[in-house]
Amino acid sequence: MTTTRIWTAALVVIGDEILSGRTQDKNVAQIALWLNIQGIRLAEVRVVPDVQEAIVEAVNTLRARNDYLFTTGGIGPTHDDITVDAIAAALGVGVVIHPEASAALHRYYEARGGITEARLRMARVPDGAELIPNRMSGAPGIRHGNIFIMAGVPHITAGMLDALTGTLEGGLPLLSRTIGCWVAESEIAELLGDTEKAHEGCQIGSYPFFRHGQVGSNFVIRSTDQMALDGCAAALGAALDAVGHEAIDGGI
Amino acid sequence: MTTTRIWTAALVVIGDEILSGRTQDKNVAQIALWLNIQGIRLAEVRVVPDVQEAIVEAVNTLRARNDYLFTTGGIGPTHDDITVDAIAAALGVGVVIHPEASAALHRYYEARGGITEARLRMARVPDGAELIPNRMSGAPGIRHGNIFIMAGVPHITAGMLDALTGTLEGGLPLLSRTIGCWVAESEIAELLGDTEKAHEGCQIGSYPFFRHGQVGSNFVIRSTDQMALDGCAAALGAALDAVGHEAIDGGI
Repeated sequence: MTTTRIWTAALVVIGDEILSGRTQDKNVAQIALWLNIQGIRLAEVRVVPDVQEAIVEAVNTLRARNDYLFTTGGIGPTHDDITVDAIAAALGVGVVIHPEASAALHRYYEARGGITEARLRMARVPDGAELIPNRMSGAPGIRHGNIFIMAGVPHITAGMLDALTGTLEGGLPLLSRTIGCWVAESEIAELLGDTEKAHEGCQIGSYPFFRHGQVGSNFVIRSTDQMALDGCAAALGAALDAVGHEAIDGGI
Repeated sequence: MTTTRIWTAALVVIGDEILSGRTQDKNVAQIALWLNIQGIRLAEVRVVPDVQEAIVEAVNTLRARNDYLFTTGGIGPTHDDITVDAIAAALGVGVVIHPEASAALHRYYEARGGITEARLRMARVPDGAELIPNRMSGAPGIRHGNIFIMAGVPHITAGMLDALTGTLEGGLPLLSRTIGCWVAESEIAELLGDTEKAHEGCQIGSYPFFRHGQVGSNFVIRSTDQMALDGCAAALGAALDAVGHEAIDGGI
């Protein structure tokens, strides 16, 4: 029974800069790939503005129906950084200064102009929280129960994920294999659906492209079971070859 | 009164490939920028898997509270393309073959191996829908009331947005100006918050970075009123200069 349980996470991306189109988000893909290595499936993502009610709604809906909830963005020292207050409100707890975070910020800013009220804002956490180490800058990430509050700047987020690696309980990672083919997906759509149906526990995604004047597709097979995955990949390759289209293992 | 109404849109990104981290989404930023030119604000985004209930929930929640709803992904010919069925279910209508879409697909595939059942799947629409022209390939986008069903492949989405340009009612575009400064945002956080408070109708976002061994920040001021925007930018520039930090108009 335990082997079939799927562990899920949701992600709330907090930031007007993503919704305005100014900044291209990179945290969805980064966190998705990292989660999968932990055996956790990214099940849903919401991008919300820097508005407390929007953050509270997303956090409370998603934390209730997933094993883990991650947020990115809004934990800096400026007036538009409202994530900690919003999450405290969502949890119905107060905001406190975390003594370790305060000490870390004092140390970090000692040689950088000294601590200020604004900088000390980054030591504020929802009451009851622990810290997630941040080796890139002075401000830590924050963990409160199943909620993980991360930075918005991707390389700082990466450092925080690194600190969490191997600490979250997960299940089987979702494995994948890609078969590429210089064929329009519409030409072999039926074959694709039939192959998926014949291989329980495998999903096949079809991703068409157009390169150098030629249409092609990558078929991504996903399963938590390596044998099922390999069987499905072999069957799909054979089926494509049988109708005259070379299957390229690893994708194009 | 009409000048102050804010028109909003939401976006539902449909696709296991985004949630698995395999594909980096590009449609959020592309659609956000396009919407702003139409005078429409992207208010929220959800990324959901290729699962009907997840699509139905997101579509019904977001279309009710925004002027427009866009979706991307899942409108191709293969078994994993379930967007049309899911949106029809969300609307409580049937799925029909759209005669113009069928004719366009017949024409498009005439020189490409002929029409097939799988290819004809791309002519299926929720009953009552109109088409959105697609000049890149045979399959059109779909409009049903305030819902716009778009392709997932970014350059095809771009062609569909092009076809919609100038056809949607909007309000005032959100204007922006960026002031860059080689300063840590934590150093001038108070100045930033005070400047925003003193300029009604303006929001200031603070986006720190670290380049060539130096910390800096871009401050993005947003407003629908050009005069208010310029006044706020001038005040922020003067305030930064006054504390010894050169303000760089246009950002760094």
